[in-house]
Formats: sequence, structure tokens, C-alpha cells
Amino acid sequence: MHEQRPLAVTMGEPAGIGPELVGMAWRILRHDAQCRFVCLADPRFLHRRLRAAGIDVPIVEIDAVPEAGLRFADALPVLSLDSPVASGEPGRPDVADCPAVLEAIHTAVALVQDGACRALVTSPVQKETLYLSGFRFPGHTELLGQLAARRGGPAVAVMMLASAQLRVVPVTVHVPLADVPRLLTTDLIVSTGMIAATDLARRFAIPAPRLAVCGLNPHAGEGGQIGTEDRDVIVPAVDRLIAAGIAASGPHSADTLFHPVARTGYDAVLAMYHDQALIPIKTIAFDTAVNVTLGLPFVRTSPDHGTALQLAGTGKADPTSLICAIRMAAEMADRGG
Amino acid sequence: MHEQRPLAVTMGEPAGIGPELVGMAWRILRHDAQCRFVCLADPRFLHRRLRAAGIDVPIVEIDAVPEAGLRFADALPVLSLDSPVASGEPGRPDVADCPAVLEAIHTAVALVQDGACRALVTSPVQKETLYLSGFRFPGHTELLGQLAARRGGPAVAVMMLASAQLRVVPVTVHVPLADVPRLLTTDLIVSTGMIAATDLARRFAIPAPRLAVCGLNPHAGEGGQIGTEDRDVIVPAVDRLIAAGIAASGPHSADTLFHPVARTGYDAVLAMYHDQALIPIKTIAFDTAVNVTLGLPFVRTSPDHGTALQLAGTGKADPTSLICAIRMAAEMADRGG
Repeated sequence: MHEQRPLAVTMGEPAGIGPELVGMAWRILRHDAQCRFVCLADPRFLHRRLRAAGIDVPIVEIDAVPEAGLRFADALPVLSLDSPVASGEPGRPDVADCPAVLEAIHTAVALVQDGACRALVTSPVQKETLYLSGFRFPGHTELLGQLAARRGGPAVAVMMLASAQLRVVPVTVHVPLADVPRLLTTDLIVSTGMIAATDLARRFAIPAPRLAVCGLNPHAGEGGQIGTEDRDVIVPAVDRLIAAGIAASGPHSADTLFHPVARTGYDAVLAMYHDQALIPIKTIAFDTAVNVTLGLPFVRTSPDHGTALQLAGTGKADPTSLICAIRMAAEMADRGG
Repeated sequence: MHEQRPLAVTMGEPAGIGPELVGMAWRILRHDAQCRFVCLADPRFLHRRLRAAGIDVPIVEIDAVPEAGLRFADALPVLSLDSPVASGEPGRPDVADCPAVLEAIHTAVALVQDGACRALVTSPVQKETLYLSGFRFPGHTELLGQLAARRGGPAVAVMMLASAQLRVVPVTVHVPLADVPRLLTTDLIVSTGMIAATDLARRFAIPAPRLAVCGLNPHAGEGGQIGTEDRDVIVPAVDRLIAAGIAASGPHSADTLFHPVARTGYDAVLAMYHDQALIPIKTIAFDTAVNVTLGLPFVRTSPDHGTALQLAGTGKADPTSLICAIRMAAEMADRGG
């Protein structure tokens, strides 16, 4: 049975809250058959960290993924890595642990690509530490894009933040605000919108998704009175999306696009830059927003928070976002991952 | 008695929803002694419009402001203008009506500056039509700044959006997003923050207001990794505000600053640009947000919406924002306008 295959969940940065959250999420989800997962981690480290944080979770080390589904109700299944966690001290990321962090991700991706696991859920990593080890991607999303591309097929990774109330897709992401007007092209908006529409249909069961496209400038530029990008760059992109058969609208004045009544008018928002997308969703759904990577040949979600180093080891971090990420990955995979 | 003096409410664009909203607001507020107001309008036009829209409101034309307080419970008091509304057709702004629109504003400002009225509440105007008549200000706020400056005294008009849940002050407002990084200076952030702190203390009964200052770039620039303005322009501004005795903090990552828990940490947010301020407040408080002008020698509020030409004449516009604006003006004036 399809549903028997577990999800793959990485431990993330050992010095962060990821390992604890995985344990806490298992306690909540252990009897949820749809959400069964295998954790990619160093089992001895994970056991040590959970015990130190006062989180009572039995761990079972497994050798083959299919065991995870059978054992999940009784213990957190961990597929052991070759690279042990050398340090893993709470709050103190150590470059010596980067091999373990990266092996967890690479192994999880391979399991999902091979079909042994249904979908990928990643815990947060400490990018600055990974950079010290020679990691050359801005983040998880871009690494996943490259890993997917190696096998051929579509692999333009597009970030979406999703909650029950709102889905947002930023067209530009982690770039200085001053660079946004230059980076924002009609082609980029169109390609991002196409990927969003395709994945909303395929993985969110929305056959004809309605995309609301934000303007860049105040009041979407007031017809060119406040900046020209809305008229010259975004209007043509909306026209091209419509011509491609997508129910796109806009450019909309971004400030009036996110209140409850406005949200009934679309299935997702294409935002032009990071804060235009993330301010509304984190204002409305701070604890439940999930980071979803669109455009990959497999399903990938992650919690919408970082490593929270100052909370690591305390057992006080909130697993809500990771639980939401696991649930969303399971639902997306079961719709046709 | 101080409270006997009414507020001054302008009719706004005759072709828009302003005249109807004033009538609807009077019906709701007529027995609220704190909110008594006089409307600056052409009384014959106002009567005609309200009747056509099916809004049953008796109008009393008054010659002197003090009559307004005495008559308010029984009829909407209107102080007649010299310039009649010539057209006023719903949905069709006419440059011929600009003299009436501007006379209402100028008269209201004079009444507030002379102390005959306690505070100013303006209904929305149609800027494009005013521009055709030679109006040379970006909007109400800048005109009011100049009118106040004529009499001397402080008059740097600063826009705040305020609701029960959130107050936001954009440091730059109706400018293209591409110009924001250049326009954003340490001096501008500091002067805006000083005005906000002064008026929050004086008119919002917050003796030591806490100002949360947004970063400009994603994640407030991650220490210069994603743009340098947060580090080079905003950090020094926060330092100078603190040195001036203001409880300022930041730069904060804007996306995590507006959820309910985060909002307990400050009294107002200094945002770096229009959408960074207006997205969160219009997402949370679309119907109740009020536009407040800080930095003037008198109190001025207005509803946070436009002329809504397509709704004009139907009687279906929602007076909530105007009512909130009137209530907030009354409260601010009574705290020490």
C-alpha cells in the first residue's frame, strides 16, 4: 500500500531545536498512520539530546526504511547515518557536525527520489556553519533543486509558505530590497506563476488555481504614477499567465490583498519580494505556516522557523510548525507526489 | 466646557462615498456626546445625495459652530460653504467641484486652528481631479502640513495608521519601491521616530512609547549579508533614538514583527516603506484602521480608504472606518490635542 511508505524527516542542525522537535512531533503523531516517518539522524546523539531536554521518546534504530512504518507507533524510527554527530552541544553549532547534517539531507533526498519514502521534511539548518564547511547554496531549497536536476526532469525550486488561511509565493526571496526592481522580470514572474499553478493543481487538489499577483509599488503604482514596474513588468506577466490558461489577476495593491474577505478571492498570492509575502502569512499564521518547495519532482516541506539556538536543549521549543509541515507533506504526497 | 466644542468633518469628494458616510456616521454617533461634529459641506447637495442613496438623515444648516453641539442629537449640523457643489454626480468626479472640496478642508482647518473645533476628520478626496484644478500636494497630509506651517510651530506631517491591535508609521510613503533605499536616511528615520514618540505620549496617553523599528531587507539584512542599509542606516537611527531617551528597538525582521505575541512588545512600529506598514495593519484591521496625522499642532484623522467611486450613491458603503476616525480624533483631542 502506498500509505505504508513513511516520510523522511531530517534532524537538521544538531545544536538547534530540530532534534528535539522531531521527538516532540513523534509523540503527537505516533498514532497517525498517514504521518508515519523515519528520522535521518545519529541515533545515539538524538537519544542523548532528547533525554537531556527531558523529552521521553523511545528510539528504534532501523536498517531498512520499511521497518519504520511497522515500528512507528511504538518508537521513533531512526535510520542511522555514517557520519556521527561529533559535538551537537545545544546552542553551539560546530563545523565538525556539518557532514552529519548534510548526510541526513542527501540520504533523505535519495530515499524520496527512489520512492522508499513518500516525501521529504527538513528540519532547520545553520547556514553560516554550513558555509564554513564549504556549502555553496543559499539554503536547502537551492540544494534540493540541484539534487533533483541531477536526475533530469523539472527542478526549478520555488518557495511557497502555506497555512490554512493563506498561501504565498515570493518571486524574489533572499535578496536586498534595492535589487528587487532589477531582478523582477516578466519572465521570472511568469515562470514562478506557472510552477505555482502546476503544483497547486497537482499537490493541493486545486484544479484551476486562482493566482493573485501583487504590485511592486504602493497601490500597485497607480497606473505608473508611483513607479513603472507594475505597468511595464507585472501587467505583461499577468497577461501571459492568463494567455497560458491560468486564472491570474493583478497587479493588486498588496496592502488590501490579505484581509479575510480578500483572501476568498484567490488560492495563492504571487508576491514580488520576501517581506511582501512573509509579513502577511507570519502575521496571520505565525505558528502554523509551512515552507513548501514547489517545482521539484518530489514533495518537500519544512517548518517556517530557524534553528532557534537559544532554545536548543531546553525542551521548550514549539513543535507546531514541524507537525504542520509533516501533515502537509503527507497530504501533498497522497494527492500525487 | 471643553467637550462642547465639536469636531470638524469634511465632506470629501462629492462624487465619492464621503457624503454618504458622514450621514451614516451621524446616525450611529448622534447620542455620543464626545463625538459631536459639524460637517463642512454644501447642505443642499448633501441633503440631495443622502435622500437619493436612501439614507434618512435630517440636516440642519448652522451659521456658527457652537450651534452644532446643541443640535447634534436631532440633526446632522452642516456649516455651509461659499462654493456650492456644482455637479456631485455619484462616481463622476468633476473638476468644477474642486473649489467646494478645498473650501471644506480650508474652513475645517481654520476652525480647528482657531479652537472653535476640537479636531479635524477628513473624508477622502479624489487626488487626480484635484490635480487637474491645480492642486499641488501629494495629498491631504502635505496640504495640512503647509497650512499648519503658515501659522508657525511644528508642522512635519507624519502618517500613522492606527487600530486597536496595531499602530504603524511608514518612514517613506507614496514613492516607488526602487527609490526607498535612497530616500531612507538615518536623519529621516530619527525625525520620524521623534515625532511618533512625542505624539504617542501627548495624544495616545503612552508616556514612554516603545518603538519597534523594522529592517529594510529580508531578515533585517542578516548583519549585512542581505543588503547593508539595516546595518549602516537603520542601526545608527535606532541608536540615536535610544540616546534621545526613546524606547526604540531594532532593526527587527519585519516578517516576524506583527503576529499577536510580537505585538505585545511595542506601542508602534516604524516601517521603512508603504507596504511594510500597510500590509500588516490592513491584514489585521481592514475595516477599523484609521489614518492619523502626527506632527501637526492639531489633531487630524481620516478613514483608511479612498473615494470608492463605484459604490457612491448606493448607500452601501461601510461607515466603520469613518466612525473609528471620528472616535479616535475625539479621544486624541480630549487627551491634549
